Amino acid sequence: MNKTMRDRAARAIAECRLIATMSEEPGHITRRFLTPPVHAVHAHLRARMEALCMTVHTDAVGNLRGLWQPEGAGPKRLVLGSHIDTVPDAGAFDGVLGVTLALELVEIAQQQQLALPIEIIAFSEEEGVRYGVPFLGSRAVAGIFDETMLAYEDADGVRMEDTIRALGLNPAKLAEAALDANTLGFLEIHIEQGPVLEAENLQVAVVSAIVGQTRGALVFTGHANHAGTTPFALRRDALAGAAEWIVAVESLAQKTDGLVATVGKITIEPNAANVVPGAAHASLDLRHENDGIRATALKELLAEAQAIAARRSLTVEWAEQMSEPAVPMDPHLTHLLAEALEATGFPTKTMPSGAGHDAMVLAARVPTAMLFLRSPGGVSHHPDEAVREEDVEAALQVSAKFLEQIAAGCPTLAT
Amino acid sequence: MNKTMRDRAARAIAECRLIATMSEEPGHITRRFLTPPVHAVHAHLRARMEALCMTVHTDAVGNLRGLWQPEGAGPKRLVLGSHIDTVPDAGAFDGVLGVTLALELVEIAQQQQLALPIEIIAFSEEEGVRYGVPFLGSRAVAGIFDETMLAYEDADGVRMEDTIRALGLNPAKLAEAALDANTLGFLEIHIEQGPVLEAENLQVAVVSAIVGQTRGALVFTGHANHAGTTPFALRRDALAGAAEWIVAVESLAQKTDGLVATVGKITIEPNAANVVPGAAHASLDLRHENDGIRATALKELLAEAQAIAARRSLTVEWAEQMSEPAVPMDPHLTHLLAEALEATGFPTKTMPSGAGHDAMVLAARVPTAMLFLRSPGGVSHHPDEAVREEDVEAALQVSAKFLEQIAAGCPTLAT
Repeated sequence: MNKTMRDRAARAIAECRLIATMSEEPGHITRRFLTPPVHAVHAHLRARMEALCMTVHTDAVGNLRGLWQPEGAGPKRLVLGSHIDTVPDAGAFDGVLGVTLALELVEIAQQQQLALPIEIIAFSEEEGVRYGVPFLGSRAVAGIFDETMLAYEDADGVRMEDTIRALGLNPAKLAEAALDANTLGFLEIHIEQGPVLEAENLQVAVVSAIVGQTRGALVFTGHANHAGTTPFALRRDALAGAAEWIVAVESLAQKTDGLVATVGKITIEPNAANVVPGAAHASLDLRHENDGIRATALKELLAEAQAIAARRSLTVEWAEQMSEPAVPMDPHLTHLLAEALEATGFPTKTMPSGAGHDAMVLAARVPTAMLFLRSPGGVSHHPDEAVREEDVEAALQVSAKFLEQIAAGCPTLAT
Repeated sequence: MNKTMRDRAARAIAECRLIATMSEEPGHITRRFLTPPVHAVHAHLRARMEALCMTVHTDAVGNLRGLWQPEGAGPKRLVLGSHIDTVPDAGAFDGVLGVTLALELVEIAQQQQLALPIEIIAFSEEEGVRYGVPFLGSRAVAGIFDETMLAYEDADGVRMEDTIRALGLNPAKLAEAALDANTLGFLEIHIEQGPVLEAENLQVAVVSAIVGQTRGALVFTGHANHAGTTPFALRRDALAGAAEWIVAVESLAQKTDGLVATVGKITIEPNAANVVPGAAHASLDLRHENDGIRATALKELLAEAQAIAARRSLTVEWAEQMSEPAVPMDPHLTHLLAEALEATGFPTKTMPSGAGHDAMVLAARVPTAMLFLRSPGGVSHHPDEAVREEDVEAALQVSAKFLEQIAAGCPTLAT
């Protein structure tokens, strides 16, 4: 008798909870790139893949990869998966759920006798905690892994290449980790890690794009004065200028649809209660799925900062630290995914992802789609991170339908 | 031949520069409570006082005191002086100038044969650097020295009473440091330490009051969220709330005559560029010479904080750390000082002092007046602290006239 989708959702969640026990820190979930608990996760997932008659190997960057090749099917495969590393003191679902759901989807595809080869990739590294660089796993799969990174050292002075070798892997074979030429697409299922779906009372959404991001710092410089002896008219208060600008940043975000603008960091000098601030350093994090809108917003905010500074006899300087373009998901796969939502009875919600994902890296190499499911409370990167069983079930229903459509409609499949 | 006032101004400045060389740190001016360079300052000032035929002693808190008792004059004395300690890496004039000018004034009084006894007090401690408590010298003179402070230790673990004993003084005799019952008033001459006189192109001003001061911290609490995945409408951004309030603080100061309001310190949590701030701690320093206006302003700013917090689903808490009432200067002496300005041809500018002074402490015990002179650039507590010779001359002219008026008009003087 086939398992119900609800049973499968429960199992995918239980598997995440089981994998959560494989951690560098007892009682907390911490699993950095190729640390010992990752070996345990590999062993567990390998057994699960082999039970599904998949051909399993670990590539040279430590991604665990299983291939289900149905008898008589052509060579064109769909890739499913997400990452199995975590931030320190993480939750149980960020990344891992995309892998445990992929295992359910392979079994569903087998039961439905879909003539669709499926590769599961459990990416070894997405968070960037151990070596300060994210997406190690997906970079190798996308064929853009910069091998000079192999010399990077972790906090204990262990080189990345030695970490790889310790797992019995050969860093010289990194190029072989690249996606098979016969890959027709990649689907990543991931928790939203934000509060949008919950606020809109929705279970799942199709990701339209990974937002582009500008990050930098603005420094307002005025003059530090004695707070008691300097009247308002003679002050050049850098914090007052920064405060006026922070209000303007928020106001622009409020009136620009989809714009996410954050001043998350501020430090002032000399930062003493009785001294008029002489300098204020404020961070800016600006995100939008449309690069043009983001560029216009940045221009507007910098002009506003200049206007504020001029009015207050301050100077202001902007130092850009990062500018990453938006990565749109593949229109065709995204359309299919939206159709799968509709076919399974869910509103066809589309939203950008405000955070980066392996899907962002693979999109440069292969048509890529992404499915979000609701994060209760919007909580992620925290032990309280959770999922609702009915939402995991919804994600399974939608992605199973997506696989059906791919298997049925893909003209490149030889069945 | 009598010295001109300009010569006296030049000498008072030269004496400050000489005393500046008596420092704990070569090349910098640092002279904390009763440290070795203070002994050198005492020796120098004692010689100057004795050359003026003054009777000199050091009281039990280390104030150097000289009395000029003109032959045939009554017992009622006027006290002149200021402090000889400094902040670390100080300027040469904060405090000390009030003492070197007092020496000139005694000589002027002698030459003019004023029948006015004059006591000069070089207060040993005003800044509060060594033991974390300001006004040690003037507290003892005002008879309000709390003797439990004798057990306080400095950064090297040296108790205050041992510091006092090391100078050959007896802390058991602190009560004897109190002002003589025959004191008719105190005049302190001090640099403004602010930019007001310079901005108004004035040389000297009569101090109306030492402003009252409220100091405290406001904590806005919201919720820390991922900056990328949390849209504006779902944020509870503590920094955005604090920024709106900082703008409101400035705006109230701008429209309230004489109100000095400063947010000099802000710290936020977690203070990361990609996290919506969950908490913001902002200091408030509020000063006015009218306690009622200060209280109303505080009430208004806390109500504004509450309104901002309510609108943004934040909470806000106020912790008051200090509330000191304003100390008005003596109306009669202040009037005499203003008359002295007028008589010597200066505009009768009156202004509050935004900083504390020994005059604030003595005012509780004896009629007190204070004369400010211009601080170039408003700079103080900094090696660049300066005075202009013509301003020092102006201060001398005004205070010499003040002494004349006191000597002539004081009905309690028996001549």
